Formats: sequence, C-alpha cells, structure tokens
Amino acid sequence: MRIGLLGCGTVGSALMALLASERDWLHERVGEELEVARILVRDPARDRGPYVDRALLTTSAEAIWSDPEIEVVVELLGPDPLARRAIVAALEAGKSVVTANKELLSTDFQVLSTLAASVGRDIFFEAAVAGGIPLVRALRVSLLGERISRVVGIINGTTNFILTRMQDHGEGFLDALSEARRLGYAEADPSGDISGRDAASKLAIIASIAFGLEVSVDDVRVEGIEGLTEADARFAERNGQVIKLLATAERTADEQGPLVHVEVAPALVDRSHPLAHVGGPDNAVYLQGGAVGQLLFQGPGAGGMPTASAVLADVIDASRNLRAGVCARALVADRGRLGGSDRKRRRFAISLDVEDRPGVLATVSQVFGRHGVSIARMEQEEMSEDSAHLVFLTHDTTLATIDATLGDVGELPVVRALHALIRVLA
Amino acid sequence: MRIGLLGCGTVGSALMALLASERDWLHERVGEELEVARILVRDPARDRGPYVDRALLTTSAEAIWSDPEIEVVVELLGPDPLARRAIVAALEAGKSVVTANKELLSTDFQVLSTLAASVGRDIFFEAAVAGGIPLVRALRVSLLGERISRVVGIINGTTNFILTRMQDHGEGFLDALSEARRLGYAEADPSGDISGRDAASKLAIIASIAFGLEVSVDDVRVEGIEGLTEADARFAERNGQVIKLLATAERTADEQGPLVHVEVAPALVDRSHPLAHVGGPDNAVYLQGGAVGQLLFQGPGAGGMPTASAVLADVIDASRNLRAGVCARALVADRGRLGGSDRKRRRFAISLDVEDRPGVLATVSQVFGRHGVSIARMEQEEMSEDSAHLVFLTHDTTLATIDATLGDVGELPVVRALHALIRVLA
Repeated sequence: MRIGLLGCGTVGSALMALLASERDWLHERVGEELEVARILVRDPARDRGPYVDRALLTTSAEAIWSDPEIEVVVELLGPDPLARRAIVAALEAGKSVVTANKELLSTDFQVLSTLAASVGRDIFFEAAVAGGIPLVRALRVSLLGERISRVVGIINGTTNFILTRMQDHGEGFLDALSEARRLGYAEADPSGDISGRDAASKLAIIASIAFGLEVSVDDVRVEGIEGLTEADARFAERNGQVIKLLATAERTADEQGPLVHVEVAPALVDRSHPLAHVGGPDNAVYLQGGAVGQLLFQGPGAGGMPTASAVLADVIDASRNLRAGVCARALVADRGRLGGSDRKRRRFAISLDVEDRPGVLATVSQVFGRHGVSIARMEQEEMSEDSAHLVFLTHDTTLATIDATLGDVGELPVVRALHALIRVLA
Repeated sequence: MRIGLLGCGTVGSALMALLASERDWLHERVGEELEVARILVRDPARDRGPYVDRALLTTSAEAIWSDPEIEVVVELLGPDPLARRAIVAALEAGKSVVTANKELLSTDFQVLSTLAASVGRDIFFEAAVAGGIPLVRALRVSLLGERISRVVGIINGTTNFILTRMQDHGEGFLDALSEARRLGYAEADPSGDISGRDAASKLAIIASIAFGLEVSVDDVRVEGIEGLTEADARFAERNGQVIKLLATAERTADEQGPLVHVEVAPALVDRSHPLAHVGGPDNAVYLQGGAVGQLLFQGPGAGGMPTASAVLADVIDASRNLRAGVCARALVADRGRLGGSDRKRRRFAISLDVEDRPGVLATVSQVFGRHGVSIARMEQEEMSEDSAHLVFLTHDTTLATIDATLGDVGELPVVRALHALIRVLA
C-alpha cells in the first residue's frame, strides 16, 4: 500500500519513525506493507532524522496527488491553503485521504465528507480531534446507533496544563503559561489555544459527527482562559471544584423542535466528576447517550507519537477499505438546528476586580438585582491595599441575561477588571 | 435487515425497547430498517413488556438459524450450552453473529473467530466485555497499529461497587455486599463476581484481542475480594490509595522472548491514578501503547440498556458489512507465550489477623525475612482484645516468593486469618 505524505513536521516524522520501527509487526498485523512512497516538504535540505529517506522528498504536491501508484494520501500541512486543494485533488484522483487538519475540517467537514463518499473513497481524521484518543471512530462506528445528548470535553492540552498548574501550584495565569512554554506544551504564539479557538475548531468537528449536523467553528460561542486568576482557582478549591476549559455540545429543544448548542468556556467542575481528574496536557471527552449512559475517553491530546498513532490507525482502516472495495458511509445529517446557548437556564460564576471601599459590593450587587440575577454565593478576597477580587456564583439564569448584566457591570467606575465568565458543569 | 434473537432477558428486552423507541431515527442513520424477525425464549408465556411481540417468540433455536431470511443472529443466552451450538450453526448458515457471551468467548474465542472468517461472516462481541464501553472495536480497529504493552481494567461492576462502599463508607465486605444486592448490583449468587472469575473471563477476551494471543480464562491467575477487610481499606486510605480489583494483561519478555501475563487481583491504586476515581458499578480500562501512550475508557460495565447499546452497535456494523459484502479481518496472532506472572518483580501488600501478644510481630516478620522478602512498611491495628490486624507492604519481590512465604506464614499458630494478597499498581 503506497502512501503519499503531505508535510513532514513533528507528526510526519513520528509517523515515519513508527512505520520504520514497527515495520515487520505492522506488515503481519495489517496483511500488507505500508510504504511511504513520496513526501511533500517545503525545505528538502532540512534534517528530518534517520527515518526520512531524502530520496522520497518532493516540493511538488501535484507529484503526490497525480502519482497513480499512491493509494492513500496523508495530509499533515496544518493551516496551509494547499491542504484543501491537495485533499480535493487526491479524492478526485481516487485516493483515500487521512488528515489531521482541524482548521480545515472545522469549516469544510461536510463538503469534504460528501466529496469522499461521492467518489467512493474515505476521508478519515481521527488525529484532528483529541489527538491519540480514538474518539472519531467511536462516534462514527461504535456509537452510530446511540442517540448522543451531550458531549463535554477537555480538548485543548495547553490550556488544561495551564489550568492544572494554576489549581495545583497556586500559580497565576502568566506563570503557568511560561511553564507550559518551557515544557513544550504551549507554542510561541499560544493565542489560538488560550482564546479557546483551537478547542472550538475541534468541537465543531466532534459536534458534526455526534449530532450529524453541519457545525462550523464560527457557530461556537467561545470564551478563553486569559482572564482567569489565582483567586478564581482558590474560589474553586474552597468549593470542592476545579476550573477546566470545557467544550460542550448539547442537544436540547425549544418550541420549534430539536436544537444543538455548542460552546467553549471555562467551567467549575466538581471534584467528584471524572473530568476534574484530567490533569496536565491530557484530553478527555465525556459523552452522554440515551441508552449507554455516560462514557469517558481520556488520553494524550497532542504530541508527535500519539497523533501519529491516530494517523496510522486511519491509514490502516483506509487501506483495508480500499482492498475490500468499500468506503465508510457518509454521515447522515440529523434534522436539527444550532443555537439555544443563550437561553439555557443554568448557573454562572463571574470573577472581577473592584475598588476596595465601602459601598462597592452593594453597587455591583444592585446591577445583578436589576437584571433579575439571583446570587447563590459571593466571595471576596483582598488583593492589594485598595483592590478586592469578587466572585459571584449565580442561581439559574441565562447567558443572554448574564451578557446584559456584565455589560452594565463593566460600565461601573468601581469595577477595575471583569476577569472571567465561568460556566458551572451540571 | 432481519435479525434473529436468541434469548430475551434483561438485555434482549432492552434491545427490543431501543429498536422500537428509536425506530425511525435508526432507519435514517443506518440506511435500512433493523427488524427482529424471531426470538428464541424458554417460556413463551412470560410477560416481556410492550416491546416484545409474542407472535415472534419461538422455543426452537433451529427455527432461527435455519431461517433463510435472517441475516444477523444475536445471541444473548448466557452460560447455556445451546449458545455455542447456535453460533456455530448460524455462522455455517452464512449469518453474521453478535454475542454478549463472555463465558463462551473466554474459552472459544479463537475457534469462533476463525470459523467466522472462514465463512466470510462477522462475529462481533462488544457487549461481552466492559458493557457499554466501546473497547473491543477500539482494540480491533482504532488501535490495530498500536503495540499495546499493558491493559489494566476495572471490569467487574459488582466488585467495584463493593470496594467503593468499603472505601468511602468504611463498610465491611459483607455490609457492602448486602448493599450491592439491595441495589441490584450483585446477583443472588455473587460468587462469580467476588471471586474474580467474571473479570478473568473478560480479561481473557481483552488480552486475546489486545495481544493477538489465544488466552483462556484458565490462563488467568485470579484472586478475589472476599478476604478484604475494612482495615485494608483504611490502610489504603492512610497511604493515599484505594483498593480496586484490577484485571491486568501485560507484555513482558524473558530469555526466550516475549511473554504476556494475565491476572486478576485486588490492588492498591494511588489516588493520583485515573483508575482510582472509577467509582460505583462503573467499568474502566486503561491501555498503555507504544506510540499513543496512555488511554482510559470509562463507562457502564453492565445493565440492560448500556449492554443493549453495545449489541446494537455490533448489529449495525455487521449489517453494513453484509450489505458491502465484506467482513472484519480475523485477528492475526502475535508470536508470544503466556506466563511470567510469578516472576515479575513488584510490590505486594499482605493483610492478616494475628494473636495480639508479645513476640508475634517478630515471629511473622522472621518468615518474610527467611524468604528474602524485604518489608517497606508495616501497619498494625488493634482489632479486639486479643487480635490485631497487620498489613505488610513489601519491597520488590516475585509472586513465586510471596506464594512460598504465605504458605509458611499460614502455618504459624499465631496467625488467625490470612486475609488478602494485594498487588500494588505501579
């Protein structure tokens, strides 16, 4: 089985190492040899270690998608416009495609899936969400007959590492971020991770499969973790909780029928919940199904080898389908609409810094009262001589109401910083 | 797609309910209707609720396996000799088979898999291990290219419920067992669960798939939880651990090459380990792979609906394969031998009751010393006026040495009861 590889960075090199070191064993298990026949790179001169044969390198993507001997194309280009063109060209040339491209799939999932099905080939993307965790195949095959009602995931390792440091070591956000950078868990520009955007891309893909809906990253309401402080972590700690960046897709309903809402936001998670114990750079996804109940999948969300493992699983599956002359079914879309995130009744925690002088608490509280937001708990911590940190935990209300409330709270002269709007995992 | 159902107890009835309540949705998702055409029962007069049409009932298994219109046979007979005969007959008649029969598979896995492959049909058994957790398909498909080095699972819900009660509520074994019975988590005769035999059956199946070896339940070294006491749970608690009944399959090696050892035994698990937080009747399986690193799957290990969900997933997969004219590949056996459990160096905890009088501790300790077993920690608890509970935690040694040591310890007149031999999860 001849494979064309587009991109040879961390994951591509790991894949080559894996194929080389497990060559005989894989041959026996898979029933034929998996041979990378050509590798697209930008810079053929760069050293890629002992497992990448320089004779295979090319700078022409076309040399791969037009090679009639290549049957599976593995796309690992990341956010490069060439990725989409190469995938389309490969499928149209009758090749199956394996991709780890969450950016692309979070917008073009349905188009590419439909194209693959129409040419009788596979597009597999286990590595695009939750790294080495075999979640996509679980949703596409094992849980095909299961009516999923909710998916809650920790699907960004960088932010989970930072939040775990803040919780366990009492570090502030910036210190925890530095540590993540030092250990290689955060990139030089971590904005896509900490803003929640990376998790939103993956959530769009997960929700598309779990609910059979066309979900784009732009449909996801996103809040990041930039605003969280040590004081918020302490608030959680005192209440037997931890703060996690959760990606949530949930099936609800309104007068007009079923509805799916998708959001990424920091949330308070009780220590008794399995997601509370997902520490460091790990990912985990919690599924609620109609018949099966609750399932948890946990594992490495990133890293060269775990991601290469997911890519390899897809390559094997695609190869076997090609040999059998079949392809995976396109996912049938459920009838359903997106939305409802702003109308769902639930609790929120709001963290903010205010001037520490008499009457301030009353001033802020009044704004909550005016919007009909009832407070379940409030904690105040002294921060400096003239500044205090407040956390308000509300009773059930809606995001729409909270948005309006925070608009007004933010206008108050006594409010120094509105740090974070935190969900509460129910 | 016409389905024949053998057995209609808890799982069978749940499957019928699921097929009825999700009929239209499933039709759309699967692409065709899944119709149960005939149901084998022992007693056609028994009431099986609104979802089981009496006109479909038969007392003849042959009526199902010889019905040319039935394409998939679902076997839910449990430990009944008819199960094996029916599965073989169904496969030979060209039907695909879905079974939840762990007892049968734990001895006849290879024979039945080989038969299915030889007739070009599937035998699927997701429901036979770890209930609703989609573990089997993960191992067979998603992790096919992953070299698994270790599988550690909590795969018996009854014992996990009992151990969770003992740990969290300070209950003794018998009280916790009563509570499990009261809540329906333990059967009238729970001996298969608490002896570890049920977990051993499932482990044999898991190890067969994960390592591609022929593993039978009789290859598994088994210790149950009957001997554990409240004092053992307190010992674990004091040391930041919990006690879990772990099923372990591990790839090691000796001078003659690779070796897989399989065992079921209670073990001390650090609270920082994900398996420590698997409470109540839940199951969880922890996998260690060469490339992917560590993966955890957690979910309901039993129950009508979760098990029916796993059966349904298999039925859908088998149906799609039949329509596509393909079947799952037979699993290729790795070269490897079973054994090595007794020679692996590791820590153990031994719990026993002794007479509470001067010199007893020295007497018992001497036996450990004589066998070269070095003690890392010992805790003594007063039990009654003349009786004390001891827990010895050893440094690294082997099971063979421990077996010999305990043989001698058990002979000492001062030893009233040798309660449990506990592993330590490393």
